[in-house]
Amino acid sequence: MNRAGRDDSREVLVIRSDARSMETRERILAAAAIEFADRGYAGASIALIAEKSATGKGLVQYHFKAKSDMALAIVRSAFSEAPFANLLGVDSAHGLEAVVASIRSVAGAFRDDVMVRAAVRLMREYHLIPVTLPTPYVGWIARIGGLLREAEVAGEIHPGLDPDREAWHLVAYFSGVQEISNRLSAREDLPERIEEMLARALVTLGAVAPDRYL
Amino acid sequence: MNRAGRDDSREVLVIRSDARSMETRERILAAAAIEFADRGYAGASIALIAEKSATGKGLVQYHFKAKSDMALAIVRSAFSEAPFANLLGVDSAHGLEAVVASIRSVAGAFRDDVMVRAAVRLMREYHLIPVTLPTPYVGWIARIGGLLREAEVAGEIHPGLDPDREAWHLVAYFSGVQEISNRLSAREDLPERIEEMLARALVTLGAVAPDRYL
Repeated sequence: MNRAGRDDSREVLVIRSDARSMETRERILAAAAIEFADRGYAGASIALIAEKSATGKGLVQYHFKAKSDMALAIVRSAFSEAPFANLLGVDSAHGLEAVVASIRSVAGAFRDDVMVRAAVRLMREYHLIPVTLPTPYVGWIARIGGLLREAEVAGEIHPGLDPDREAWHLVAYFSGVQEISNRLSAREDLPERIEEMLARALVTLGAVAPDRYL
Repeated sequence: MNRAGRDDSREVLVIRSDARSMETRERILAAAAIEFADRGYAGASIALIAEKSATGKGLVQYHFKAKSDMALAIVRSAFSEAPFANLLGVDSAHGLEAVVASIRSVAGAFRDDVMVRAAVRLMREYHLIPVTLPTPYVGWIARIGGLLREAEVAGEIHPGLDPDREAWHLVAYFSGVQEISNRLSAREDLPERIEEMLARALVTLGAVAPDRYL
Protein backbone atom coordinates (compact mmCIF):
# COMPACT_ATOMS: atom_id res chain seq x y z
CA MET A 1 0.00 0.00 0.00
CA ASN A 2 2.80 2.39 0.77
CA ARG A 3 4.80 1.50 -2.29
CA ALA A 4 3.65 3.89 -4.97
CA GLY A 5 1.08 6.33 -6.28
CA ARG A 6 -1.31 8.80 -4.81
CA ASP A 7 -0.99 7.79 -1.15
CA ASP A 8 2.78 8.09 -1.15
CA SER A 9 2.68 11.63 -2.51
CA ARG A 10 0.09 12.53 0.13
CA GLU A 11 2.34 11.11 2.77
CA VAL A 12 5.27 13.28 1.70
CA LEU A 13 3.09 16.32 2.22
CA VAL A 14 2.04 15.02 5.63
CA ILE A 15 5.58 14.41 6.78
CA ARG A 16 6.47 17.98 5.72
CA SER A 17 3.76 19.37 7.92
CA ASP A 18 3.58 18.14 11.50
CA ALA A 19 0.49 20.16 12.26
CA ARG A 20 -1.30 18.81 9.23
CA SER A 21 -0.22 15.30 10.15
CA MET A 22 -1.53 15.64 13.69
CA GLU A 23 -4.79 16.98 12.37
CA THR A 24 -5.14 14.01 10.00
CA ARG A 25 -4.35 11.59 12.82
CA GLU A 26 -7.03 13.18 15.00
CA ARG A 27 -9.53 12.99 12.13
CA ILE A 28 -8.79 9.29 11.66
CA LEU A 29 -9.17 8.62 15.39
CA ALA A 30 -12.47 10.50 15.51
CA ALA A 31 -13.81 8.38 12.63
CA ALA A 32 -12.42 5.21 14.24
CA ALA A 33 -14.12 6.11 17.54
CA ILE A 34 -17.51 6.23 15.81
CA GLU A 35 -16.83 2.86 14.14
CA PHE A 36 -15.66 1.20 17.36
CA ALA A 37 -18.51 2.66 19.44
CA ASP A 38 -21.12 1.49 16.91
CA ARG A 39 -19.72 -1.83 15.68
CA GLY A 40 -17.14 -2.88 18.25
CA TYR A 41 -13.59 -4.00 17.60
CA ALA A 42 -14.37 -6.97 15.36
CA GLY A 43 -16.97 -5.10 13.30
CA ALA A 44 -15.00 -1.89 12.70
CA SER A 45 -13.82 -1.53 9.11
CA ILE A 46 -10.57 0.22 8.16
CA ALA A 47 -12.06 1.01 4.75
CA LEU A 48 -15.02 2.79 6.37
CA ILE A 49 -12.72 4.63 8.76
CA ALA A 50 -10.69 5.86 5.78
CA GLU A 51 -13.89 6.91 4.04
CA LYS A 52 -15.43 8.65 7.07
CA SER A 53 -12.20 10.53 7.83
CA ALA A 54 -11.84 11.51 4.14
CA THR A 55 -8.37 9.99 3.99
CA GLY A 56 -7.09 6.99 2.04
CA LYS A 57 -6.38 3.53 3.39
CA GLY A 58 -2.68 4.21 2.82
CA LEU A 59 -2.77 7.32 5.00
CA VAL A 60 -4.67 5.42 7.71
CA GLN A 61 -1.98 2.76 7.66
CA TYR A 62 0.75 5.37 7.72
CA HIS A 63 -0.62 6.55 11.07
CA PHE A 64 -1.77 3.19 12.44
CA LYS A 65 -0.06 -0.05 11.38
CA ALA A 66 -2.98 -2.17 12.60
CA LYS A 67 -6.52 -1.86 13.90
CA SER A 68 -5.20 -2.70 17.37
CA ASP A 69 -2.94 0.40 17.32
CA MET A 70 -6.01 2.50 16.64
CA ALA A 71 -7.87 0.85 19.53
CA LEU A 72 -4.95 1.48 21.86
CA ALA A 73 -4.68 5.13 20.79
CA ILE A 74 -8.39 5.65 21.47
CA VAL A 75 -8.29 4.01 24.89
CA ARG A 76 -5.21 6.05 25.84
CA SER A 77 -6.64 9.26 24.51
CA ALA A 78 -10.00 8.71 26.21
CA PHE A 79 -8.70 7.67 29.61
CA SER A 80 -5.30 9.30 30.01
CA GLU A 81 -5.64 12.58 28.15
CA ALA A 82 -8.10 15.45 28.08
CA PRO A 83 -11.05 15.73 28.35
CA PHE A 84 -11.55 12.55 30.38
CA ALA A 85 -8.48 12.89 32.56
CA ASN A 86 -9.51 16.46 33.38
CA LEU A 87 -12.86 15.22 34.62
CA LEU A 88 -11.09 13.27 37.32
CA GLY A 89 -10.11 16.42 39.12
CA VAL A 90 -11.85 19.70 38.51
CA ASP A 91 -9.32 22.31 39.63
CA SER A 92 -11.69 24.42 41.63
CA ALA A 93 -13.17 21.50 43.59
CA HIS A 94 -11.73 19.60 46.53
CA GLY A 95 -12.67 16.70 48.76
CA LEU A 96 -16.17 15.33 48.57
CA GLU A 97 -17.32 18.04 46.18
CA ALA A 98 -14.64 16.94 43.70
CA VAL A 99 -15.62 13.27 44.11
CA VAL A 100 -19.22 14.07 43.24
CA ALA A 101 -18.20 16.35 40.34
CA SER A 102 -15.87 13.69 38.98
CA ILE A 103 -18.54 10.96 39.03
CA ARG A 104 -21.05 13.27 37.32
CA SER A 105 -18.56 14.34 34.66
CA VAL A 106 -17.43 10.81 33.89
CA ALA A 107 -21.07 9.71 33.60
CA GLY A 108 -21.68 12.58 31.17
CA ALA A 109 -18.68 11.54 29.10
CA PHE A 110 -19.84 7.88 29.05
CA ARG A 111 -23.10 9.08 27.58
CA ASP A 112 -22.10 11.92 25.29
CA ASP A 113 -18.43 11.62 24.28
CA VAL A 114 -18.00 9.19 21.40
CA MET A 115 -14.28 8.82 22.15
CA VAL A 116 -15.06 7.68 25.70
CA ARG A 117 -17.92 5.45 24.53
CA ALA A 118 -15.60 3.81 22.02
CA ALA A 119 -12.94 3.34 24.71
CA VAL A 120 -15.44 1.79 27.14
CA ARG A 121 -16.62 -0.65 24.49
CA LEU A 122 -13.03 -1.52 23.51
CA MET A 123 -12.15 -2.13 27.16
CA ARG A 124 -15.08 -4.56 27.38
CA GLU A 125 -13.84 -6.34 24.26
CA TYR A 126 -10.23 -6.52 25.44
CA HIS A 127 -10.15 -10.28 24.86
CA LEU A 128 -10.38 -9.65 21.12
CA ILE A 129 -7.63 -7.03 20.90
CA PRO A 130 -4.05 -8.28 20.42
CA VAL A 131 -2.36 -5.48 22.38
CA THR A 132 -2.21 -4.84 26.12
CA LEU A 133 -4.68 -2.10 26.97
CA PRO A 134 -4.13 0.04 30.08
CA THR A 135 -5.56 -1.53 33.25
CA PRO A 136 -8.96 0.03 33.73
CA TYR A 137 -10.31 1.62 36.91
CA VAL A 138 -7.06 1.82 38.90
CA GLY A 139 -6.26 5.44 38.00
CA TRP A 140 -9.71 6.63 38.88
CA ILE A 141 -9.80 4.61 42.12
CA ALA A 142 -6.48 6.17 43.19
CA ARG A 143 -7.71 9.65 42.31
CA ILE A 144 -10.97 9.28 44.23
CA GLY A 145 -9.05 7.75 47.14
CA GLY A 146 -6.94 10.92 47.33
CA LEU A 147 -10.01 13.14 47.24
CA LEU A 148 -11.69 11.10 49.99
CA ARG A 149 -8.58 11.58 52.13
CA GLU A 150 -9.03 15.35 51.65
CA ALA A 151 -12.72 14.97 52.52
CA GLU A 152 -11.86 13.13 55.73
CA VAL A 153 -9.32 15.75 56.78
CA ALA A 154 -11.91 18.46 56.06
CA GLY A 155 -14.42 16.64 58.28
CA GLU A 156 -16.83 16.16 55.36
CA ILE A 157 -17.27 12.40 55.82
CA HIS A 158 -17.32 9.82 58.58
CA PRO A 159 -13.87 9.69 60.22
CA GLY A 160 -11.95 6.41 60.22
CA LEU A 161 -13.05 5.13 56.81
CA ASP A 162 -10.47 3.51 54.54
CA PRO A 163 -10.39 6.01 51.64
CA ASP A 164 -8.96 3.54 49.10
CA ARG A 165 -11.54 0.90 49.92
CA GLU A 166 -14.36 3.45 49.70
CA ALA A 167 -12.93 4.65 46.37
CA TRP A 168 -12.90 1.04 45.07
CA HIS A 169 -16.57 0.72 46.00
CA LEU A 170 -17.58 4.05 44.47
CA VAL A 171 -15.95 3.13 41.17
CA ALA A 172 -17.46 -0.39 41.27
CA TYR A 173 -20.93 0.99 41.98
CA PHE A 174 -20.52 3.58 39.21
CA SER A 175 -19.36 0.89 36.81
CA GLY A 176 -22.40 -1.28 37.48
CA VAL A 177 -24.80 1.67 37.23
CA GLN A 178 -23.49 2.68 33.81
CA GLU A 179 -23.48 -0.95 32.63
CA ILE A 180 -27.07 -1.70 33.60
CA SER A 181 -28.27 1.69 32.41
CA ASN A 182 -26.55 0.94 29.09
CA ARG A 183 -28.06 -2.54 28.76
CA LEU A 184 -31.58 -1.70 29.88
CA SER A 185 -32.05 1.88 28.61
CA ALA A 186 -29.13 2.63 26.22
CA ARG A 187 -27.91 5.04 28.95
CA GLU A 188 -31.06 7.16 28.68
CA ASP A 189 -31.70 6.99 32.43
CA LEU A 190 -28.01 7.34 33.33
CA PRO A 191 -28.13 10.93 34.74
CA GLU A 192 -31.08 10.02 36.99
CA ARG A 193 -29.46 6.74 38.10
CA ILE A 194 -26.20 8.54 38.87
CA GLU A 195 -28.03 11.01 41.13
CA GLU A 196 -29.72 8.11 42.92
CA MET A 197 -26.34 6.43 43.27
CA LEU A 198 -24.74 9.58 44.68
CA ALA A 199 -27.51 9.96 47.26
CA ARG A 200 -26.89 6.36 48.46
CA ALA A 201 -23.10 6.68 48.37
CA LEU A 202 -23.16 9.88 50.44
CA VAL A 203 -25.10 7.99 53.14
CA THR A 204 -22.56 5.15 53.30
CA LEU A 205 -19.71 7.67 53.41
CA GLY A 206 -21.43 9.34 56.33
CA ALA A 207 -21.41 12.70 54.53
CA VAL A 208 -21.99 15.41 57.12
CA ALA A 209 -24.14 17.55 54.83
CA PRO A 210 -25.24 15.29 51.95
CA ASP A 211 -27.78 17.76 50.57
CA ARG A 212 -24.96 20.18 49.77
CA TYR A 213 -23.86 17.86 46.96
CA LEU A 214 -27.23 16.81 45.49
CA MET B 1 -20.54 -34.39 8.18
CA ASN B 2 -23.79 -36.23 8.70
CA ARG B 3 -23.59 -38.05 5.42
CA ALA B 4 -21.90 -41.31 6.24
CA GLY B 5 -19.80 -43.40 8.56
CA ARG B 6 -19.19 -43.51 12.25
CA ASP B 7 -21.08 -40.37 13.31
CA ASP B 8 -24.28 -41.40 11.55
CA SER B 9 -24.35 -44.78 13.20
CA ARG B 10 -23.74 -43.09 16.57
CA GLU B 11 -26.63 -40.76 15.92
CA VAL B 12 -29.02 -43.62 15.29
CA LEU B 13 -28.18 -44.99 18.70
CA VAL B 14 -28.68 -41.59 20.27
CA ILE B 15 -32.09 -41.08 18.69
CA ARG B 16 -33.14 -44.48 20.05
CA SER B 17 -32.27 -43.43 23.57
CA ASP B 18 -33.63 -40.12 24.84
CA ALA B 19 -31.80 -40.42 28.14
CA ARG B 20 -28.52 -41.11 26.40
CA SER B 21 -29.17 -38.18 24.06
CA MET B 22 -29.85 -35.79 26.93
CA GLU B 23 -26.72 -36.98 28.65
CA THR B 24 -24.67 -36.35 25.52
CA ARG B 25 -26.19 -32.90 25.11
CA GLU B 26 -25.30 -32.03 28.71
CA ARG B 27 -21.76 -33.29 28.18
CA ILE B 28 -21.38 -31.14 25.07
CA LEU B 29 -22.72 -28.08 26.93
CA ALA B 30 -20.34 -28.67 29.83
CA ALA B 31 -17.38 -28.80 27.43
CA ALA B 32 -18.67 -25.75 25.56
CA ALA B 33 -18.98 -23.82 28.84
CA ILE B 34 -15.28 -24.38 29.56
CA GLU B 35 -14.38 -23.24 26.05
CA PHE B 36 -16.58 -20.11 26.20
CA ALA B 37 -15.43 -19.20 29.72
CA ASP B 38 -11.75 -19.52 28.73
CA ARG B 39 -11.71 -18.26 25.14
CA GLY B 40 -14.91 -16.32 24.67
CA TYR B 41 -17.40 -16.67 21.85
CA ALA B 42 -15.05 -15.90 18.98
CA GLY B 43 -12.24 -18.08 20.29
CA ALA B 44 -14.29 -21.17 21.15
CA SER B 45 -13.67 -24.08 18.78
CA ILE B 46 -16.33 -26.63 17.86
CA ALA B 47 -13.60 -29.17 17.16
CA LEU B 48 -12.20 -28.76 20.69
CA ILE B 49 -15.69 -28.94 22.19
CA ALA B 50 -16.25 -32.23 20.34
CA GLU B 51 -12.90 -33.50 21.59
CA LYS B 52 -13.39 -32.39 25.20
CA SER B 53 -16.88 -33.89 25.35
CA ALA B 54 -15.64 -37.12 23.75
CA THR B 55 -18.20 -36.87 20.96
CA GLY B 56 -17.77 -36.26 17.25
CA LYS B 57 -18.31 -33.03 15.34
CA GLY B 58 -21.32 -34.69 13.71
CA LEU B 59 -22.92 -35.40 17.06
CA VAL B 60 -22.20 -31.85 18.25
CA GLN B 61 -23.93 -30.52 15.15
CA TYR B 62 -26.83 -32.92 15.62
CA HIS B 63 -27.50 -31.25 18.96
CA PHE B 64 -26.49 -27.67 18.05
CA LYS B 65 -26.80 -26.39 14.48
CA ALA B 66 -24.46 -23.48 15.15
CA LYS B 67 -22.11 -22.11 17.80
CA SER B 68 -24.73 -19.46 18.59
CA ASP B 69 -27.26 -22.18 19.54
CA MET B 70 -24.75 -23.50 22.03
CA ALA B 71 -24.21 -20.02 23.47
CA LEU B 72 -27.94 -19.49 23.82
CA ALA B 73 -28.40 -22.87 25.54
CA ILE B 74 -25.66 -22.02 28.04
CA VAL B 75 -27.05 -18.58 28.86
CA ARG B 76 -30.56 -20.01 29.26
CA SER B 77 -29.34 -22.92 31.34
CA ALA B 78 -27.17 -20.70 33.55
CA PHE B 79 -29.70 -17.94 34.17
CA SER B 80 -33.15 -19.51 33.89
CA GLU B 81 -32.63 -23.02 35.18
CA ALA B 82 -31.07 -24.63 38.23
CA PRO B 83 -28.73 -24.05 39.97
CA PHE B 84 -28.60 -20.31 39.23
CA ALA B 85 -32.35 -19.70 39.25
CA ASN B 86 -32.56 -21.49 42.61
CA LEU B 87 -30.02 -19.09 44.05
CA LEU B 88 -32.41 -16.24 43.46
CA GLY B 89 -34.72 -17.43 46.19
CA VAL B 90 -33.57 -19.87 48.84
CA ASP B 91 -36.80 -21.49 50.02
CA SER B 92 -36.17 -21.18 53.70
CA ALA B 93 -35.26 -17.47 53.58
CA HIS B 94 -37.51 -14.43 53.29
CA GLY B 95 -37.19 -10.67 53.05
CA LEU B 96 -33.82 -9.12 53.68
CA GLU B 97 -32.24 -12.43 54.68
CA ALA B 98 -33.15 -13.85 51.26
CA VAL B 99 -31.76 -10.76 49.50
CA VAL B 100 -28.43 -11.18 51.23
CA ALA B 101 -28.38 -14.97 50.64
CA SER B 102 -29.20 -14.44 46.98
CA ILE B 103 -26.38 -11.92 46.44
CA ARG B 104 -23.89 -14.22 48.19
CA SER B 105 -24.98 -17.28 46.22
CA VAL B 106 -24.86 -15.50 42.88
CA ALA B 107 -21.38 -14.19 43.69
CA GLY B 108 -20.30 -17.73 44.53
CA ALA B 109 -21.67 -19.00 41.23
CA PHE B 110 -19.89 -16.18 39.30
CA ARG B 111 -16.67 -17.38 40.82
CA ASP B 112 -17.03 -21.14 40.96
CA ASP B 113 -19.63 -22.36 38.44
CA VAL B 114 -18.14 -22.64 34.94
CA MET B 115 -21.61 -22.62 33.36
CA VAL B 116 -22.38 -19.27 34.99
CA ARG B 117 -18.93 -17.89 34.19
CA ALA B 118 -19.39 -18.88 30.55
CA ALA B 119 -22.84 -17.28 30.49
CA VAL B 120 -21.53 -14.04 32.05
CA ARG B 121 -18.78 -13.83 29.45
CA LEU B 122 -21.20 -14.59 26.61
CA MET B 123 -23.57 -11.87 27.85
CA ARG B 124 -20.69 -9.41 27.74
CA GLU B 125 -19.91 -10.49 24.19
CA TYR B 126 -23.52 -10.32 23.01
CA HIS B 127 -22.54 -8.02 20.13
CA LEU B 128 -20.67 -10.93 18.54
CA ILE B 129 -23.46 -13.52 18.85
CA PRO B 130 -26.04 -13.66 16.04
CA VAL B 131 -28.99 -14.69 18.22
CA THR B 132 -31.02 -12.69 20.71
CA LEU B 133 -29.87 -13.55 24.21
CA PRO B 134 -32.26 -13.09 27.15
CA THR B 135 -32.23 -9.56 28.59
CA PRO B 136 -29.85 -9.66 31.52
CA TYR B 137 -30.54 -8.37 35.05
CA VAL B 138 -34.31 -7.84 34.78
CA GLY B 139 -35.30 -11.18 36.30
CA TRP B 140 -33.01 -10.74 39.27
CA ILE B 141 -34.06 -7.10 39.79
CA ALA B 142 -37.72 -8.18 39.87
CA ARG B 143 -36.96 -11.00 42.28
CA ILE B 144 -35.00 -8.78 44.69
CA GLY B 145 -37.72 -6.11 44.41
CA GLY B 146 -40.26 -8.68 45.65
CA LEU B 147 -38.02 -9.71 48.53
CA LEU B 148 -37.47 -6.06 49.54
CA ARG B 149 -41.24 -5.59 49.60
CA GLU B 150 -41.39 -8.50 52.05
CA ALA B 151 -38.58 -6.91 54.05
CA GLU B 152 -40.47 -3.63 54.25
CA VAL B 153 -43.68 -5.28 55.41
CA ALA B 154 -41.68 -7.19 58.03
CA GLY B 155 -40.18 -3.91 59.26
CA GLU B 156 -36.65 -5.02 58.41
CA ILE B 157 -35.73 -1.94 56.37
CA HIS B 158 -36.47 1.76 56.24
CA PRO B 159 -40.17 2.24 55.44
CA GLY B 160 -41.13 4.21 52.33
CA LEU B 161 -38.32 3.04 50.05
CA ASP B 162 -39.15 2.15 46.45
CA PRO B 163 -38.33 -1.60 46.44
CA ASP B 164 -37.87 -1.83 42.66
CA ARG B 165 -35.50 1.13 42.59
CA GLU B 166 -33.49 -0.27 45.51
CA ALA B 167 -33.38 -3.63 43.72
CA TRP B 168 -32.05 -1.95 40.56
CA HIS B 169 -29.29 -0.35 42.61
CA LEU B 170 -28.37 -3.55 44.45
CA VAL B 171 -28.02 -5.43 41.17
CA ALA B 172 -26.05 -2.56 39.59
CA TYR B 173 -23.70 -2.36 42.57
CA PHE B 174 -23.25 -6.15 42.53
CA SER B 175 -22.58 -6.09 38.81
CA GLY B 176 -19.85 -3.46 39.18
CA VAL B 177 -18.27 -5.24 42.16
CA GLN B 178 -17.98 -8.52 40.27
CA GLU B 179 -16.70 -6.73 37.14
CA ILE B 180 -13.92 -4.81 38.91
CA SER B 181 -13.02 -7.79 41.08
CA ASN B 182 -12.77 -9.83 37.87
CA ARG B 183 -10.63 -7.27 36.06
CA LEU B 184 -8.31 -6.39 38.94
CA SER B 185 -8.02 -9.71 40.82
CA ALA B 186 -9.54 -12.45 38.58
CA ARG B 187 -12.37 -12.57 41.18
CA GLU B 188 -9.99 -13.63 43.94
CA ASP B 189 -11.18 -10.84 46.25
CA LEU B 190 -14.84 -11.25 45.26
CA PRO B 191 -16.12 -12.84 48.52
CA GLU B 192 -14.49 -10.07 50.59
CA ARG B 193 -15.74 -7.32 48.26
CA ILE B 194 -19.26 -8.75 48.36
CA GLU B 195 -19.26 -8.63 52.18
CA GLU B 196 -18.07 -5.00 52.04
CA MET B 197 -20.79 -4.26 49.52
CA LEU B 198 -23.47 -5.89 51.67
CA ALA B 199 -22.39 -3.86 54.71
CA ARG B 200 -22.76 -0.63 52.69
CA ALA B 201 -26.03 -1.68 51.05
CA LEU B 202 -27.61 -2.56 54.41
CA VAL B 203 -26.85 0.98 55.59
CA THR B 204 -28.53 2.61 52.58
CA LEU B 205 -31.53 0.31 52.98
CA GLY B 206 -31.79 1.42 56.59
CA ALA B 207 -31.64 -2.18 57.81
CA VAL B 208 -32.91 -2.24 61.37
CA ALA B 209 -30.40 -4.90 62.52
CA PRO B 210 -27.65 -4.97 59.88
CA ASP B 211 -25.32 -7.15 61.97
CA ARG B 212 -27.85 -9.99 61.79
CA TYR B 213 -27.00 -10.44 58.12
CA LEU B 214 -23.23 -10.01 58.17
